[in-house]
Amino acid sequence: MKHTASSSDTSTQSPTALFDQACTTAREAAVLASVEAALGWDERTGMPPKAADYRGEQAAAIAGLLHAKRTAPARGEALAELAASPLATEGSPQVRAAIRLMAHDYEKQARLPVRLVTEMAKTTVDAQQAWAVARAKSSWATLAPWLEKVFALKREQAACQRPDLDPYDSLLDDYEPGGRWPVIAERFTHLRDAIVPLVRACGEASRRPTDAIMRRHFPLHDQQRFVRTVAERIGFDFQRGRLDTTDHPFCSTLGPDDCRITTRWDEAYLPTALFGVLHEAGHGLYEQGLPREWFGLPPGEAASLGIHESQSRLWENLVGRSPEFWEWCFPVAREAFPAALTDTTAADVQAALLVVEPSFIRVEADEVTYNLHVMLRFDLERAVVHGDLSVADLPAAWNERFENDFGRRPPTDAEGVLQDIHWSAGLIGYFPTYTLGNVFAAQLMAAATRAIPNLGQQMAAGQLGDLLGWLRKTVHAAGRMQESEPLVERVTGEPVSERWLVESLTRRYGPAYGLS
Amino acid sequence: MKHTASSSDTSTQSPTALFDQACTTAREAAVLASVEAALGWDERTGMPPKAADYRGEQAAAIAGLLHAKRTAPARGEALAELAASPLATEGSPQVRAAIRLMAHDYEKQARLPVRLVTEMAKTTVDAQQAWAVARAKSSWATLAPWLEKVFALKREQAACQRPDLDPYDSLLDDYEPGGRWPVIAERFTHLRDAIVPLVRACGEASRRPTDAIMRRHFPLHDQQRFVRTVAERIGFDFQRGRLDTTDHPFCSTLGPDDCRITTRWDEAYLPTALFGVLHEAGHGLYEQGLPREWFGLPPGEAASLGIHESQSRLWENLVGRSPEFWEWCFPVAREAFPAALTDTTAADVQAALLVVEPSFIRVEADEVTYNLHVMLRFDLERAVVHGDLSVADLPAAWNERFENDFGRRPPTDAEGVLQDIHWSAGLIGYFPTYTLGNVFAAQLMAAATRAIPNLGQQMAAGQLGDLLGWLRKTVHAAGRMQESEPLVERVTGEPVSERWLVESLTRRYGPAYGLS
Repeated sequence: MKHTASSSDTSTQSPTALFDQACTTAREAAVLASVEAALGWDERTGMPPKAADYRGEQAAAIAGLLHAKRTAPARGEALAELAASPLATEGSPQVRAAIRLMAHDYEKQARLPVRLVTEMAKTTVDAQQAWAVARAKSSWATLAPWLEKVFALKREQAACQRPDLDPYDSLLDDYEPGGRWPVIAERFTHLRDAIVPLVRACGEASRRPTDAIMRRHFPLHDQQRFVRTVAERIGFDFQRGRLDTTDHPFCSTLGPDDCRITTRWDEAYLPTALFGVLHEAGHGLYEQGLPREWFGLPPGEAASLGIHESQSRLWENLVGRSPEFWEWCFPVAREAFPAALTDTTAADVQAALLVVEPSFIRVEADEVTYNLHVMLRFDLERAVVHGDLSVADLPAAWNERFENDFGRRPPTDAEGVLQDIHWSAGLIGYFPTYTLGNVFAAQLMAAATRAIPNLGQQMAAGQLGDLLGWLRKTVHAAGRMQESEPLVERVTGEPVSERWLVESLTRRYGPAYGLS
Repeated sequence: MKHTASSSDTSTQSPTALFDQACTTAREAAVLASVEAALGWDERTGMPPKAADYRGEQAAAIAGLLHAKRTAPARGEALAELAASPLATEGSPQVRAAIRLMAHDYEKQARLPVRLVTEMAKTTVDAQQAWAVARAKSSWATLAPWLEKVFALKREQAACQRPDLDPYDSLLDDYEPGGRWPVIAERFTHLRDAIVPLVRACGEASRRPTDAIMRRHFPLHDQQRFVRTVAERIGFDFQRGRLDTTDHPFCSTLGPDDCRITTRWDEAYLPTALFGVLHEAGHGLYEQGLPREWFGLPPGEAASLGIHESQSRLWENLVGRSPEFWEWCFPVAREAFPAALTDTTAADVQAALLVVEPSFIRVEADEVTYNLHVMLRFDLERAVVHGDLSVADLPAAWNERFENDFGRRPPTDAEGVLQDIHWSAGLIGYFPTYTLGNVFAAQLMAAATRAIPNLGQQMAAGQLGDLLGWLRKTVHAAGRMQESEPLVERVTGEPVSERWLVESLTRRYGPAYGLS
């Protein structure tokens, strides 16, 4: 790696040379980021318990090198010059997006004082440890002082990185670029107004589907073979990826041809692994579908976490829980689990996958109530960021809201305000992307159904290639060139609306519960 | 990481400050080297097939950063000043060794032209690909031009890095610091004079042990549990390490508390995994026993490959094939494999592990003939380095020597001169460390037996703690502070001699074959 660019040099370079150099640096940074991802994957899958301390040193060393590469002043000067060059307006769409977003990312990072970055890193490590203790003891007092610090630091970050934005929108920009809280809040209000009554109606329905057949014995090895078959069937490429076991499932990209997904297994409940893998493989299909030649540059990056989640939810819920998919999947499942499924029918399984059952814990929630969990967190974290709610008042606010939406109060804070690690980890502005993903997924699936007239028949035959191909062409190929809402609007031909999600839930869960 | 040292700065620093700074840089380099090891471990255990290209970029990026850190001129100046300071003669043994060896390593690396390092890297990658083709076709002509280049480059490297040494000894210095070929050659001649007749006598013996009971069916899952039990029993710490599956077993250290071993499995031959794991766990025990507080610095590094191999061979052969160990191990094995071992006795297994059977392939060789394979390669590679043998004449020389030692000629070059990847990979001066390891292991085990009077009884009870403790105290704790021969001499109280290996082989294999 040669360092030839100085402020006096750059001005003598052609825009094309400047662009090539900026891309080279970004690709070098991507190599380091992918090494960081490899260390993180290993840490969560197989690292020996006592290796954690040194792994921290390894990760910190790579993070330091990465930060230095991304924030080198010479890079900022070159990117500023590039953004003012004719290439920024006359280049190809990919080149224009790359220039705009590399400059945007640089400026945003450069506005953060190193002191703040360091303090955030240190505080969130400590806060997460405090969270683990607090949750185990169900002790809000143990976590509260740490959350005070985290929220204060996040408010400072918000003011630094995007002084032009409302503080919550500034934080949102890290996960859902272009997202604006009033738009999301209005959308969520409509959604909540539809979902709360739907959940209540399901709870009061005389006809209630049961998932008892999913709670039989499903041997681990048979599950491993089965979910791999399903992941391959929807298009996950195991030549460019792998599947491992973890307590907390995730999808991580270690390189342009190295996407790793994980799942957990429960021999007494098949959906844990099956829908876990469909979800993570959905993320993986997006990663594997991003433009490979732009890996490490904005046109090869994901548009947002909401779009990412739309891909995982589409495969998990809109394909994976559909009656059409189970026409193909049921015989495969019965062959994989003859003892458990021999006396069942496809219809039994289809019904078993549409159970609505309010629970205190978000990660155990069904497809319908899940969104209520997310909207609750969105409203509370926004109120704290905006100074309308104190950290001290979070537990009471949580319980009140939960009772309003779910009809009961969490018996302990461990089952309430203390259940998620996100806030302790500094992930504020992150929760809404989960439900935005559901909103985008429903609208995209409706558009796919219009674009592929016989999609239902294809799914029933286990042919998912056209659906994946359509997502590749419309969503994946766009990388980060468009923000999420314009992207979904372009692809579906209409403005983003939560009505598709309401329609999808009502259409599928209504009949399952005999609702009119 | 601050870069404050310049040539004018260093002279104003105290020796202690200089030393701390040199250690900090070495530890930072060790972090990067351990990241490189993590990428290499992943590449060989679980990386998706198509991820190889990008993994090459990741590894190259880390290697470049590592090389820059290790060979920074400012580091050379600081180390030279340190080597001339009072600390180099008056510090603790660890400090003195660290100063001496850091300066030695720096000077050696700095003497290599970057052009040579780059050309070596590129040539050995190409040569290894040519080797794979050549072995598959059994075509010497395919490999020969590449080996010409590799040997020429290695001769150049030898002349550059240690101009004070004979060229072969210069190469040996990379693997067995302080090793001198005339000493090794004399030792090997005595060894060969003892082993060739022993192999012949075993071949002609009327009483011949059989390993038929080891060729029954040993289910994979039972083997996995069994070898883990054995590895834990000899002291391998799974809190600081793990065991994975690979085609070519290895041991790799990813951090001071992260030692990873691998094995392959053969359901039709128990010794493949069992002795593979004992071997790699032996390496692992050494790595786990090196002084943790000196990780990344010479007092925390291995003394040599010969010493490393002595640890793996001691556990694999001198413990793992001993009748005493099998007094403990046999009931454990019979419980693990009831179907395969129910009609057998400890004596049957003990006999089955002492089969001598000459084979063309080194990696399939038994404990006795293995050394003949190594000595053949040592003599041939040395002759080429010294210009006494041309690369073109290697196959003929190989076959002639093989017939002399083993009584038959390899039917093809694939089963002869083409079988090993080492020369193509530039590993010249490496082979002798395998048999040096056996020599050191036998002498160390004899000393351990004297030091621990009831060692046999302990082994029979499955108590290996005293043996490991003795190795920890005598060998592991020394790190790289002594070269291998002085180390073994100090620990055993007598000069290094091959006679202990001859004695060990004769004592165990003579009775098995009914030799007088």
